[in-house]
Amino acid sequence: MNLDLNQLVKWRREFHRFPEIGWSEFWTTSRIADYLEDLGCFEIFLGKQIINPDFVRGRKQAVVDKGLANAKAYGANEKWLKKMEGYTGCVALFDSGKPGKTIALRFDIDCVNVTETRSPEHIPNKEGFASINDGFMHACGHDSHITIGLGVALWIAQNKDKLTGKVKIVFQPAEEGVRGAAAIAQSGIIDDADYFASSHISFCANTGTVIANPRNFLSTTKIDIRYKGKPAHAGAAPHLGRNALLAAAHTVTQLHGIARHGEGMTRINVGVLKAGEGRNVIPSSAELQLEVRGENKAINEYMTEQVMQIAKGISISFDVAYETEIVGEAVDMNNDIELIKLIEEISLEQPQINNVNSDYAFNASEDATILGRRVQEHGGKAIYFILGADRTAGHHEAEFDFDENQLLTGVNIYTSLVQKLLA
Amino acid sequence: MNLDLNQLVKWRREFHRFPEIGWSEFWTTSRIADYLEDLGCFEIFLGKQIINPDFVRGRKQAVVDKGLANAKAYGANEKWLKKMEGYTGCVALFDSGKPGKTIALRFDIDCVNVTETRSPEHIPNKEGFASINDGFMHACGHDSHITIGLGVALWIAQNKDKLTGKVKIVFQPAEEGVRGAAAIAQSGIIDDADYFASSHISFCANTGTVIANPRNFLSTTKIDIRYKGKPAHAGAAPHLGRNALLAAAHTVTQLHGIARHGEGMTRINVGVLKAGEGRNVIPSSAELQLEVRGENKAINEYMTEQVMQIAKGISISFDVAYETEIVGEAVDMNNDIELIKLIEEISLEQPQINNVNSDYAFNASEDATILGRRVQEHGGKAIYFILGADRTAGHHEAEFDFDENQLLTGVNIYTSLVQKLLA
Amino acid sequence: MNLDLNQLVKWRREFHRFPEIGWSEFWTTSRIADYLEDLGCFEIFLGKQIINPDFVRGRKQAVVDKGLANAKAYGANEKWLKKMEGYTGCVALFDSGKPGKTIALRFDIDCVNVTETRSPEHIPNKEGFASINDGFMHACGHDSHITIGLGVALWIAQNKDKLTGKVKIVFQPAEEGVRGAAAIAQSGIIDDADYFASSHISFCANTGTVIANPRNFLSTTKIDIRYKGKPAHAGAAPHLGRNALLAAAHTVTQLHGIARHGEGMTRINVGVLKAGEGRNVIPSSAELQLEVRGENKAINEYMTEQVMQIAKGISISFDVAYETEIVGEAVDMNNDIELIKLIEEISLEQPQINNVNSDYAFNASEDATILGRRVQEHGGKAIYFILGADRTAGHHEAEFDFDENQLLTGVNIYTSLVQKLLA
Amino acid sequence: MNLDLNQLVKWRREFHRFPEIGWSEFWTTSRIADYLEDLGCFEIFLGKQIINPDFVRGRKQAVVDKGLANAKAYGANEKWLKKMEGYTGCVALFDSGKPGKTIALRFDIDCVNVTETRSPEHIPNKEGFASINDGFMHACGHDSHITIGLGVALWIAQNKDKLTGKVKIVFQPAEEGVRGAAAIAQSGIIDDADYFASSHISFCANTGTVIANPRNFLSTTKIDIRYKGKPAHAGAAPHLGRNALLAAAHTVTQLHGIARHGEGMTRINVGVLKAGEGRNVIPSSAELQLEVRGENKAINEYMTEQVMQIAKGISISFDVAYETEIVGEAVDMNNDIELIKLIEEISLEQPQINNVNSDYAFNASEDATILGRRVQEHGGKAIYFILGADRTAGHHEAEFDFDENQLLTGVNIYTSLVQKLLA
Repeated sequence: MNLDLNQLVKWRREFHRFPEIGWSEFWTTSRIADYLEDLGCFEIFLGKQIINPDFVRGRKQAVVDKGLANAKAYGANEKWLKKMEGYTGCVALFDSGKPGKTIALRFDIDCVNVTETRSPEHIPNKEGFASINDGFMHACGHDSHITIGLGVALWIAQNKDKLTGKVKIVFQPAEEGVRGAAAIAQSGIIDDADYFASSHISFCANTGTVIANPRNFLSTTKIDIRYKGKPAHAGAAPHLGRNALLAAAHTVTQLHGIARHGEGMTRINVGVLKAGEGRNVIPSSAELQLEVRGENKAINEYMTEQVMQIAKGISISFDVAYETEIVGEAVDMNNDIELIKLIEEISLEQPQINNVNSDYAFNASEDATILGRRVQEHGGKAIYFILGADRTAGHHEAEFDFDENQLLTGVNIYTSLVQKLLA
Repeated sequence: MNLDLNQLVKWRREFHRFPEIGWSEFWTTSRIADYLEDLGCFEIFLGKQIINPDFVRGRKQAVVDKGLANAKAYGANEKWLKKMEGYTGCVALFDSGKPGKTIALRFDIDCVNVTETRSPEHIPNKEGFASINDGFMHACGHDSHITIGLGVALWIAQNKDKLTGKVKIVFQPAEEGVRGAAAIAQSGIIDDADYFASSHISFCANTGTVIANPRNFLSTTKIDIRYKGKPAHAGAAPHLGRNALLAAAHTVTQLHGIARHGEGMTRINVGVLKAGEGRNVIPSSAELQLEVRGENKAINEYMTEQVMQIAKGISISFDVAYETEIVGEAVDMNNDIELIKLIEEISLEQPQINNVNSDYAFNASEDATILGRRVQEHGGKAIYFILGADRTAGHHEAEFDFDENQLLTGVNIYTSLVQKLLA
Repeated sequence: MNLDLNQLVKWRREFHRFPEIGWSEFWTTSRIADYLEDLGCFEIFLGKQIINPDFVRGRKQAVVDKGLANAKAYGANEKWLKKMEGYTGCVALFDSGKPGKTIALRFDIDCVNVTETRSPEHIPNKEGFASINDGFMHACGHDSHITIGLGVALWIAQNKDKLTGKVKIVFQPAEEGVRGAAAIAQSGIIDDADYFASSHISFCANTGTVIANPRNFLSTTKIDIRYKGKPAHAGAAPHLGRNALLAAAHTVTQLHGIARHGEGMTRINVGVLKAGEGRNVIPSSAELQLEVRGENKAINEYMTEQVMQIAKGISISFDVAYETEIVGEAVDMNNDIELIKLIEEISLEQPQINNVNSDYAFNASEDATILGRRVQEHGGKAIYFILGADRTAGHHEAEFDFDENQLLTGVNIYTSLVQKLLA
Repeated sequence: MNLDLNQLVKWRREFHRFPEIGWSEFWTTSRIADYLEDLGCFEIFLGKQIINPDFVRGRKQAVVDKGLANAKAYGANEKWLKKMEGYTGCVALFDSGKPGKTIALRFDIDCVNVTETRSPEHIPNKEGFASINDGFMHACGHDSHITIGLGVALWIAQNKDKLTGKVKIVFQPAEEGVRGAAAIAQSGIIDDADYFASSHISFCANTGTVIANPRNFLSTTKIDIRYKGKPAHAGAAPHLGRNALLAAAHTVTQLHGIARHGEGMTRINVGVLKAGEGRNVIPSSAELQLEVRGENKAINEYMTEQVMQIAKGISISFDVAYETEIVGEAVDMNNDIELIKLIEEISLEQPQINNVNSDYAFNASEDATILGRRVQEHGGKAIYFILGADRTAGHHEAEFDFDENQLLTGVNIYTSLVQKLLA
């Protein structure tokens, strides 16, 4: 197997065809494990070895079951499925056997709930590698991330004798909704890392640009609130009901009134609200899907506490049962200057990179920050950068596609980083 | 064709198998028309002859299209389908040619969105006439109403020479949600009626009872409100969004605060609320399904006006587009004493009736009241009564079934009424 | 002292000059006690003998202190002031010493917060007996009630040998705001009564009419809610505040959303809301003055419980301290038929009464109902009637005055009642 | 008259004794005019010469009338009172007659609603110059500003022959609540200024410090909203009311839900809410006193527009009349580098200044910014700085007093500035 663009494109297109939503990436994980096993120099960790179930966010059993069934139908390797214990994602450990640093690299593997365009202009259609599943699509580009991760693994296998220390390649599930990183962080699997690196393709950067230092990652918590009241006939006995929809509406109005924070930016959004059973029945159930954000972790925690307080108060005011569930979270993170400098240097060595940006306000949230901060809290250094690549449409849009040439650029940046840190 | 229980049960079971939801009763209407045509003495009115499209409530095109397609698949008579012009229901006119009164009788024909139980104990399963369509079931007993209507038609055909005046048998679509009567009333088709009668099977009365005078029909209006805002990224640019979910939540809290009315009972219920597209997007769409009620028409109109005012105000406060749609309505009605007395008298003549109740607080809404009041407003008299029948479960429940023997009781009451008024 | 109109008018005008607001009727009470003592046949009960402090509603210490100071300034009898122990009102017991029934009659004694008109047309101005205190006026007519009570006492003194059993004449403080009756009821002072009677002058009835059976007394509870939060600079540190005004606003929106009751009429009104300290400070205090009503006691209790629940929930949602205070209450009451018949009979015996109405929907609340129901709960019978009297303006208006001739009619009705029950 | 600390202290203490609240500074203005006139080289502008009535914010007629009456009682010069035309404040123009720049200096003159402590430790008490009016106090230190302004005027009079160009000394009314500057700016009186300077004493800086460049002035708008509904009996006819209190409560909950702005900080506070007339009356009136802030003018305007939109929408939803009044406003402003440098330089020349801070986040609002930006918009340069001075308590506290020695420092800084710009 040669480490060239041809091989990378082959991988990318295979994964593009079988997109799997967060926590259902059974086929994806098993294929990654297959390839890693073939390389012969990685120990493969799966299931509860890398996932702490107590910190799993936003995982629905129905989604898991469907994913597992699909994976079997697609011919996933039963050996891996069993080792996964119901939890997707894997970590590949390369141990050089020589003293040295430990590097953790993170690549996310889930798709999004988008139906891929059927336009004949769309390259995946032209070339026959479009998603086989309506409603699921690698429209965020995580297929490129998987591919770059495998490319790095292949390079390590081909250069293993020149390396010292260890490399841990983390294939993370459920990045969308910032759901998967907490469970991996809390498994402790990367606690020994001296360096952590991760990246996203495209985003705000075209082919030729690397953003070496995005800053202003927002801390965020994704929360579901569910109310359970009591139905009653809306005409004959409204007083016997316990109105979950009304409770939910008041929750929304209270949530939007959470006081702004004097020390930094806050955000609140109730993105989805579903309540009630029928027009003439006092509504007995309601669900709110919301998120809060803060300029830093403390401010985000302030917002989260206010949400919890409001849900509790509402449940008393309206005499409805309630539950809150944290279904995702990310934190703010500052890239370490040592790694910023290295990525700048490496980027400028790539012939196709002509623009390195070291001060970009990200103003969004990324699950990788939980892993990066975990490494930093254990004394290591972390970076998250953006790998420019032209794209045909916005992320999460049905027409999304990206410049496949940058797969090789991505692999080169990571392998240069490994080389500089471990050679 | 004999007018006996056997024939009635045959009809009832045929219609029970093919339940059709409001405004999609194409097969049902065409079968009714077939039977009426066979009787040879009815003029059959369909489509815009009996439906004023301006007053059609809660009719979704997708439901209509599906219903029409199904009807064709089930072999409905194309002749009738064409005459229906997309609107279900029919009115059969018997004209004796002799001077006399005009009586309008109303039978509703739609089913509800319930999936019929598959329990082998359930008689429709045992006897093989359960609904062929999951999600649709004659669980309110309107199949009995159709049957009684056809039974009355058969009796008229057999007794036509003894009768004077006219009979109009109204087979009304979309009673559920009180949606269909307004369009029929506004077509003018029963404006010449001297008498109007309608009834419901079972409800609160078992076999052996007739409730000759239910009172306290509530006026009600069923309203949908839809808001359309503008999506925006909830983290980066919340100020660019126009939040339809937040608008909807405030609508709910305002609606529940509509002042009680000093002159009588009011009700408000937002039964269903759906809003938002995704957790991290400022929600751009919301829909509320609600109803108001009032002790009388004026109070109900007060409530309806308040709702409209609130929706308008909210659209300004939140800079969102809005639309309101009246999807159903019923009014209060007082039964006329002449007809109450007649139904009491007739009921007591039925050997199987041993209990006639003439003072029952209905405290609910019925679409028939719109037709009854229309007749009263044109100088006629109206009644709505309840025909007792044992049932196996509550109305709208998957296990609902009723005592088929009462089909014949029902026919007898109506035909006695016709005889007393027109003979 | 003759029991004639002249004497009654003298009393009425004296009390009219010195109006005292609820719980401050120290001068009024002491004058009543003076007159009763002079009559020589009454035992006089004051203070905690007739007031259970635990059930005193809506009594502000500042008002009490001011009232006491005024009373001293007006020359009130110190003996009575001391026995009052800070609580106004008195009960006069006449005990015939002979076996017989016990009758309780109730007359309320407080004024309202209205400034009496200075118009020279207004008889109290013409005749020189207008209120000496701006902001306080007997504009509801309770001066007539005091007078009738004293007239009845005078009659008893003059007829004491002809009577059996006992009469308890209750001069009740703080009827306005339905605040005083509960404390008297809970003192037990009328628990032995076989009959209870009370009345109001004028209201909806002119001279010549008696309403013998007003019905539809509404149960009501008057509640204050106070929130205490934490101030903070609204620009620099809004997150450090705990917003009592926002809590109060949400309380209002939740209160108005309390579900209507299927079994009868409900009412909710937040009549007054005051909150906040300054424009640029997160508001730390808020007060709501509200009332609920219900068609009967149970429905009113449902409303009251919902209010309490909402206040509690809000305090949690907004992290503010709260307190609720019941500052008034009245219940529904059904007049007993025996007493209705008696009042009808007696009224028709009065030459100046030409109209007796026995079915009038009161649709308001009266503190006397608490005393009437207390008597009924102990096996006695109760009535509340309306004594017609022409008036010059609405109750609680600055121009209010009434036909003084009806003072004698009032005395005659009560004394006839006593005579019929105790002679 | 010598320009020394003694004279400055005399002035300060005189003004401290007669504190006047915004728009009522008639005595203060007339005294300032007296002193300026005595100096002999100033043209004095008053009334509509310096105040554009269309942009007067938060001026209540009752306050004006009271202030005018007080001023007369205190012996204010009638000549000035007449020229003021009801509007306080004055502008003193010094014209050297020689070509040169024009400098505008602004000093605010109003007090705050605080009752000065009666503690004998408090120097104004010890020295006998405490406020003569309970409820009014120069507790923000504007008495020092008046004094410094007069000191600068005295210096100009003594150095008038050495100067070129013009100086306009603006004695501004109603700075508290950011109410007075807009009317002065819109009069055009300083449109010809090349330089604008203003300052505040103490704040966050002790004796020895000058903050040469406070930044992050928040734009703010102070708004009153008033609703007028219709009263009705809360028990008998709630539907006839138009509930202004309920409208106000919903306004509060909507205001707090105004979407945060993606481009910078926002604030909203409803600081005061008063509504309703009585517990059992549907409330017919309500007033909200609120403020919004924004990181810059555009963001503040976004907030202001949202407020207006909400008030309008609410008035429709609740069928109440409404009015909104802008009672104060300030904008953000960036100090000009030329003037920052000059103030730094000058400050370091003062022996008693040992600390010059050129980067301080102000994070509050100041009326002077409206004047500064007006000058900048006409091509001039502006600065607002902070003159350190030890204080005994926080601004707006009853125990507030400041280090009077800094009066002279203040005069020296301004006169150095004038000298450097105009000599």
